[in-house]
Amino acid sequence: MSTSEQYFPNEPVAPTVVTSEFPGPKSQEGIKSLGQVFDSRPVYFIADYEKSVGNYIVDADGNSFLDVYAQIASIPLGYNNPALIEAAKSDKMIRAIVDRPALGNYPGKDLEEILNGLLAVAPKGQDKVFPALSGADANELAFKATFFWYQAQKRGGHKVPFSDEENTSVMKGQAPGSPELAILSFERAFHGRLFASGSTTCSKPVHKLDMPSFNWPKAEFPSYKYPLDKHEEENKKEDQRCLEIVENLFKTHSCPIAGVLVEPIQSEGGDNHASNEFFQGLRDITLKHGALLIMDEVQTGIGATGLFWGHEHFEISPPADLVTFSKKFQTAGYYFHDPEIIPNVAYRQFNTWCGDPARMILAGAIASEVVKHDLPAKAQKVGGYLFKKLEDLQAKYPQYLQNLRGKDRATFIAWCFDNSAARDKFLKDMKTVGVNIGGCAEKSVRLRPTMVFEQKHADILVAAIEKVLSGY
Amino acid sequence: MSTSEQYFPNEPVAPTVVTSEFPGPKSQEGIKSLGQVFDSRPVYFIADYEKSVGNYIVDADGNSFLDVYAQIASIPLGYNNPALIEAAKSDKMIRAIVDRPALGNYPGKDLEEILNGLLAVAPKGQDKVFPALSGADANELAFKATFFWYQAQKRGGHKVPFSDEENTSVMKGQAPGSPELAILSFERAFHGRLFASGSTTCSKPVHKLDMPSFNWPKAEFPSYKYPLDKHEEENKKEDQRCLEIVENLFKTHSCPIAGVLVEPIQSEGGDNHASNEFFQGLRDITLKHGALLIMDEVQTGIGATGLFWGHEHFEISPPADLVTFSKKFQTAGYYFHDPEIIPNVAYRQFNTWCGDPARMILAGAIASEVVKHDLPAKAQKVGGYLFKKLEDLQAKYPQYLQNLRGKDRATFIAWCFDNSAARDKFLKDMKTVGVNIGGCAEKSVRLRPTMVFEQKHADILVAAIEKVLSGY
Repeated sequence: MSTSEQYFPNEPVAPTVVTSEFPGPKSQEGIKSLGQVFDSRPVYFIADYEKSVGNYIVDADGNSFLDVYAQIASIPLGYNNPALIEAAKSDKMIRAIVDRPALGNYPGKDLEEILNGLLAVAPKGQDKVFPALSGADANELAFKATFFWYQAQKRGGHKVPFSDEENTSVMKGQAPGSPELAILSFERAFHGRLFASGSTTCSKPVHKLDMPSFNWPKAEFPSYKYPLDKHEEENKKEDQRCLEIVENLFKTHSCPIAGVLVEPIQSEGGDNHASNEFFQGLRDITLKHGALLIMDEVQTGIGATGLFWGHEHFEISPPADLVTFSKKFQTAGYYFHDPEIIPNVAYRQFNTWCGDPARMILAGAIASEVVKHDLPAKAQKVGGYLFKKLEDLQAKYPQYLQNLRGKDRATFIAWCFDNSAARDKFLKDMKTVGVNIGGCAEKSVRLRPTMVFEQKHADILVAAIEKVLSGY
Repeated sequence: MSTSEQYFPNEPVAPTVVTSEFPGPKSQEGIKSLGQVFDSRPVYFIADYEKSVGNYIVDADGNSFLDVYAQIASIPLGYNNPALIEAAKSDKMIRAIVDRPALGNYPGKDLEEILNGLLAVAPKGQDKVFPALSGADANELAFKATFFWYQAQKRGGHKVPFSDEENTSVMKGQAPGSPELAILSFERAFHGRLFASGSTTCSKPVHKLDMPSFNWPKAEFPSYKYPLDKHEEENKKEDQRCLEIVENLFKTHSCPIAGVLVEPIQSEGGDNHASNEFFQGLRDITLKHGALLIMDEVQTGIGATGLFWGHEHFEISPPADLVTFSKKFQTAGYYFHDPEIIPNVAYRQFNTWCGDPARMILAGAIASEVVKHDLPAKAQKVGGYLFKKLEDLQAKYPQYLQNLRGKDRATFIAWCFDNSAARDKFLKDMKTVGVNIGGCAEKSVRLRPTMVFEQKHADILVAAIEKVLSGY
């Protein structure tokens, strides 16, 4: 019996489509009504989570879609997963909900156990964690840790106290207390939409128009030619070109670069992949210049690429300094290993809540299930099966499956259409055959199913894609 | 029967102190062990939330403290409140925990009802809400809304599209797409510790040392002489002086000021109060200069000052443009009323989660209980009783109860010691008589009990304070 059958004996065997338009009439009504109190313009449909199960999301009209977008890559183990329901009903969870502590001041007796639940699946080389509340929050807390560390090194180590001038100038927002320092990120990257995370995000204007921004440098991220095995030489040169840009920015940017921030796969920005050599190159450059390397695993983490953490494919050495997470983990934060990344004095990396213990308890349950059922390996297997089927489709419909990518990255698969309009039409048409599917960047389709997406779901997905494409 | 007796038939009648040192030996052991995975330097003690009840927090050693700090002003209705436990056990909550939606794309059928739970207690004049995850997050999302609004006005309204130059320059983090704009805040203010919220925070160096900062202006916040009724003329002049500073900053700051951000009572920064006239002055100045007024109710909201929202005491007209909340509400976000504060196009005020429905459901339950039991009025009454008792103590121990403040602000009361060392010793000594109490700024004590802190608890608190002070 497969994992999804164990979890979901009542999972539908196929999608059910009952409306002729999308969103259906009840969703349309709900979107209009919701619009009175909430910006409902981006709503695709109103969901019925009571009726959703496993890989199937049900909408207010009774359509039951195979969901390969999973709340923007965030549902880890399917809708209404019984193991997570059990965790949600536990006394520990109920206490975490009603007695939410200021974890830094008054942690409960169970905090160490809760944190160990997160650490049990920490990326290789990481043995410490700091909790946050969202991907953007996790990244910004990692920036703080990076800047604290960088200045401590500059100051001569953790034991050198702050100068009077630092203590005075910081209250005016001026150097040396508030130094000019940068995080380097990449064009087409997405790291969140707050002000510092937004300053590192560089995928679409809509994410940050009208927002003041830190003047932080952007390097180019490799743009590979596909299929990879036919363009090895060119792609290798592309790596070199991009690494030289990074190296040059360290030398030429107007202020010191304290950290380099990168996604293992640029996810929102178009599923852009880069090689092990590129990532090792980044590691080498950061070491050379005394900067930290921050891996943003918000979208790639928790098994989605076939290993628990996406960057573990690269086997870079020494490991990244900070690894941020959110989405499928349902909680957020960053892992690290260097004790010098703990700030020199207390109350610097601190806030009222320091994370949400309810979401951290759930993360522990998610981690435990993912490990117990060996889900990254299973995702790798089903991803391989799916990729092959998509290659077959590509041969048949090359125009609609350009730059198929994500081979050996489990179900973390994407491809391109000619343009935005064609891609958007495809996403919408997939609803008519019962599939909820998402895009990324201007003209890409991205697959982001749950970790309990299996061969039978892949078959349904491929048949649905073919049904739509055959009508074009 | 009082509200606390209805909720907590088993609430202790007095604190129990069983250790001779604080933290006690079991807490010390827990802090050391926790320190392996978490920065446990700021931990006061390890709490036992299973045993905590109502106004009493129990630690790992079995000490049972009357808690007038309540998780840095965040526990609304006492520990293990049965009404909140009921909400935590509901099917709605369990679904919100296990099927966390991307609320902007796939809201559940219950989202409108959940949001209406927050809107039912919106400050006068506000009828819209946007969810967030923490006080800092709420403030930064409010900044985004402010900048979007400000640039739309400058552009000539919502219907004027972004220019090509804006769309291009924003991707480089440059003007005009990423304009130089500021939020004005005040010296001694606290608004969070991320990069933009940190740029408005100005209470202690430790909050922001080594962090890059936006160059945003700080005005002086009034410093009143106490008791207020004996210094009316001087305090009025102080208001004028500070308002003139604000007005001047609008004229002289190096970039346009899009919004003014202020706490109804500067809470972390020392419980600094200002008059209705001062706040109306801020309202007038923002209107005059085409800027928005943002009220940070993170610490003052949910009845703590005797009205549901602290700034409602000021009766400013027209109402503030944005009101942010968190802490006692257990969820976060901002209220607003002007439809033009909704961004011109979708996906600008957006992120994967757009808040946490589990925490929003709890907030609805909190709001409903606070209203049902008329808790702000009850807090006002017990606060008046407590303030009188503290005035009596002040007459007896003037050195240890300087600048007693918070009259007519329910239990939102504070006073000063001579210096940090004396204040810190007092906070620690209060543990020996069974009270968990917190400080703010350099030398102040702040009272932040729950909303079910009643006369009998006030009597225990006052007796405990007198017991400590009588030994000095």
